[in-house]
Amino acid sequence: MLQAVLGLPVLEPDEPVPLASVALPQARLEPPAELAGLATAQAEARVRHTYGRSYPDILRGYRGDFALAPDLVVYPRDETEVGACLDWASRAGVPLTPWGGGTSVCGGLTPETRGPPRAVLDLGALDQVLEVDEHSLLARIQAGILGPALEEQLRPHGLTLRHFPQSFRFSTLGGWLATRAGGHFATVYTHIDDLCAGMRVVTPRGVMESRPLPGSGAGPSPDRLMLGSEGIFGVITEGTMRVRTRPRHRSSCSVRFTELEGAVAAVHAISQAALFPSNCRLLDSREAMLNQVDHSGNHVLILGFEGPQGPLTSPMDRALALARAHGGTHEAPHHRESEPADGRSQAATWRQAFFDGPYLQSTLVSLGVVADTFETCVPWSRFEALRSAVSEAVLGTMRAHTGHGVLSMRFTHVYPDGPAPYFTWLAPARRGEELALWTAVKSAATTAILENGGTVTHHHAVGRVHRSGYSSQRPARFGAVLHAVKATLDPAGVLNPGVLIASQAPEP
Amino acid sequence: MLQAVLGLPVLEPDEPVPLASVALPQARLEPPAELAGLATAQAEARVRHTYGRSYPDILRGYRGDFALAPDLVVYPRDETEVGACLDWASRAGVPLTPWGGGTSVCGGLTPETRGPPRAVLDLGALDQVLEVDEHSLLARIQAGILGPALEEQLRPHGLTLRHFPQSFRFSTLGGWLATRAGGHFATVYTHIDDLCAGMRVVTPRGVMESRPLPGSGAGPSPDRLMLGSEGIFGVITEGTMRVRTRPRHRSSCSVRFTELEGAVAAVHAISQAALFPSNCRLLDSREAMLNQVDHSGNHVLILGFEGPQGPLTSPMDRALALARAHGGTHEAPHHRESEPADGRSQAATWRQAFFDGPYLQSTLVSLGVVADTFETCVPWSRFEALRSAVSEAVLGTMRAHTGHGVLSMRFTHVYPDGPAPYFTWLAPARRGEELALWTAVKSAATTAILENGGTVTHHHAVGRVHRSGYSSQRPARFGAVLHAVKATLDPAGVLNPGVLIASQAPEP
Repeated sequence: MLQAVLGLPVLEPDEPVPLASVALPQARLEPPAELAGLATAQAEARVRHTYGRSYPDILRGYRGDFALAPDLVVYPRDETEVGACLDWASRAGVPLTPWGGGTSVCGGLTPETRGPPRAVLDLGALDQVLEVDEHSLLARIQAGILGPALEEQLRPHGLTLRHFPQSFRFSTLGGWLATRAGGHFATVYTHIDDLCAGMRVVTPRGVMESRPLPGSGAGPSPDRLMLGSEGIFGVITEGTMRVRTRPRHRSSCSVRFTELEGAVAAVHAISQAALFPSNCRLLDSREAMLNQVDHSGNHVLILGFEGPQGPLTSPMDRALALARAHGGTHEAPHHRESEPADGRSQAATWRQAFFDGPYLQSTLVSLGVVADTFETCVPWSRFEALRSAVSEAVLGTMRAHTGHGVLSMRFTHVYPDGPAPYFTWLAPARRGEELALWTAVKSAATTAILENGGTVTHHHAVGRVHRSGYSSQRPARFGAVLHAVKATLDPAGVLNPGVLIASQAPEP
Repeated sequence: MLQAVLGLPVLEPDEPVPLASVALPQARLEPPAELAGLATAQAEARVRHTYGRSYPDILRGYRGDFALAPDLVVYPRDETEVGACLDWASRAGVPLTPWGGGTSVCGGLTPETRGPPRAVLDLGALDQVLEVDEHSLLARIQAGILGPALEEQLRPHGLTLRHFPQSFRFSTLGGWLATRAGGHFATVYTHIDDLCAGMRVVTPRGVMESRPLPGSGAGPSPDRLMLGSEGIFGVITEGTMRVRTRPRHRSSCSVRFTELEGAVAAVHAISQAALFPSNCRLLDSREAMLNQVDHSGNHVLILGFEGPQGPLTSPMDRALALARAHGGTHEAPHHRESEPADGRSQAATWRQAFFDGPYLQSTLVSLGVVADTFETCVPWSRFEALRSAVSEAVLGTMRAHTGHGVLSMRFTHVYPDGPAPYFTWLAPARRGEELALWTAVKSAATTAILENGGTVTHHHAVGRVHRSGYSSQRPARFGAVLHAVKATLDPAGVLNPGVLIASQAPEP
């Protein structure tokens, strides 16, 4: 497909370096006595906790380059042990990286250079739904739980969180909260932020626990300061989450457009019509092809509604009328009560491709293709300028470096005031020059986004990769605020140094 | 009505002390040269900027007690002058109270004791809608604008903010943002927080401007730290607000219940049915009577839906089916396209009574009735225990002090995980003992709320009245965070000392 459809030259598949051949630097820390039974300097644990899932991470892992491995991995079994780990790190001055599922795509897990001896705090043992309040649709859940286990433990209650980021199978509730992950709902409840009623966070200065409330107005929200803090203020150990009854009624419909302009206008109209679709994903023609949804050159809008009440004809009918008014064509929508997805629909094809996407990236690395995604959001009135600037910058950079390049776009979430466009790019690699190409494209994309009113990230987080863009995006004084909060909660500066903000506070 | 229906003894109407007879302490500040033309120590300006609209404020104003008047009132005409005022206050060490509409009901505007010489910063001159982006439904609006002027300036664009707190006529956008005001929408977009895409805030350390974005996930939200900061970190000068096209279609229906339990169960079901009503106000039988909505002893649920698309039969039909399933009875719903409200409906009666309420409070003061309201929110599973504890505490306190007392309740906003109950209480005053009674009831209510999982405020703010309750509600470490942010942005500590947090930072 890469050669035939995209016209990309590809290389012979490369094999990853096996674990036994990995060059792993000597660990510079011994498991401390006070963390006996919790800490290990064993090689496989260190290798498995070196990288996230960004393109540079995958590439370096594939090549067996583990020079940035942590020196120690610590596995606390409960919140008290999390506190003990933080105490030890603060006293010993050892940088500590909280680790959920290890799926960061923006350098949230790996330092840029080897630096001082460091440890990783793996929260995988905190994997339980602790308490379910079926009347209030609230569940108190430990932060280290993976997506599938979380859903599995809610299922006997007839409940679901319905938060499905692309990393769902391998990422954790704590990671979603720390990074403001985007999920299932295309409108209204787009980020995990909106599903969080309260939190427990262990900081080096003690536990912060917020009161689970449906909608408090008392002072600045403490949760909103922790949401997106990416582990630099403390370790999230529990979330009290807004769950819901499993949807009984769902309707879906794919709408095809020959013109992207009409498709965007249709989504604009639907986003401002107070219809609250659960799915409103627009795939441009290339994205539709890459995901096997449509090979005819059409742009495809996948619309979905769901809820405990049915049938859902009325909002779907109104959304489809808006889509037709902007040149869309479609078959009759599917309405269904049953749980399993219709395996033949474009929506189902899309869903499968969505979850398969991350696997594909490893294959692409092996074939010598540099591939990555990035996302933003922007007011509707600036969208077309942003899209055009991003296209020019990214295609231009890829072509200047390689003579080739493919860029596609979809909307993952839409708001009355703007869309969240999500871009995928692919370019042929020259062995040894992959990281230079990746860095050039990333930088060109970020500049184009920021110059056109977008955000460096809609739901992928900041980490280290977006740190410089983030520091120019956020209000300057807010940087000083983040440093002041950091000094208050983590005075030894051991939590995730270099993520979100620079390790050293700037002059005030 | 007070005597016949509520059985309250009332006194002869009292006349307020006229301005000329007010005992006003000597101003201790001269208008500084650097604020020439902006500052005044004139008596009427000082009197008008002494109090908000809490019961104690109204009572003290009525009696002509202006011992707590500010020494100076400053009227900046633009953001640069706001900065100059902050510079002067920081250098001179003069406490400064940002002033929007002066409608605080929780002591946000008045110190507890006279304290050092102080000034009020009246933002009334910043009263313009600066920019409207009709395609993105965004409007950049100055913070000092009053509710009606804001709507008036949006009207030629066919747009509306549709944020109608009870103080709408007299309160400002900046005040709404600083206090996390609750507004028109009973579900989803309940607080001004959700309508805010970006902000400009002048702090003593410079301007903080956030980028207006539909849904960023880059780091902790800077806006969410300023929302609810009640003027202690900086002065909000502009908000970029999410506006909407004026709703063309609206439907409304009143549902009567003989049992409160059934009415609460109906609202619980509707709140979890993803129906997104714009209005879902439940009035208990006493509240229905006080507001002239129903005199038959029924509890009344006022349901409304609205939107740019119509007709809105489907969600209304589904909500009404849920209400009937819990014992509700109703006439056929009204569906209408026209702008003006139907003057005869219970919904219209309620709306009129809602906006008249604040005027009534002054009348009650004159008749020797102590009256106030308070609100909270709580998960559904804890609601009945909270309601019962609040009733017992408030009725018990009123009766112990006076032998009488009336308490009513409504839901102002509802969420899938819980309601926001709003309480009104009235008790006969004994001249000279009003404040003791008010303090006792307020304290009993706050204790009952906090012990039963509620928040000290859903949308009335913290101010000074709720500060002690707020400090036990919020995570302990978050108090240290607020003090650190305060020290970073307002190192001289001149902005609203005593509001939200204590003037002095506690030991870390």
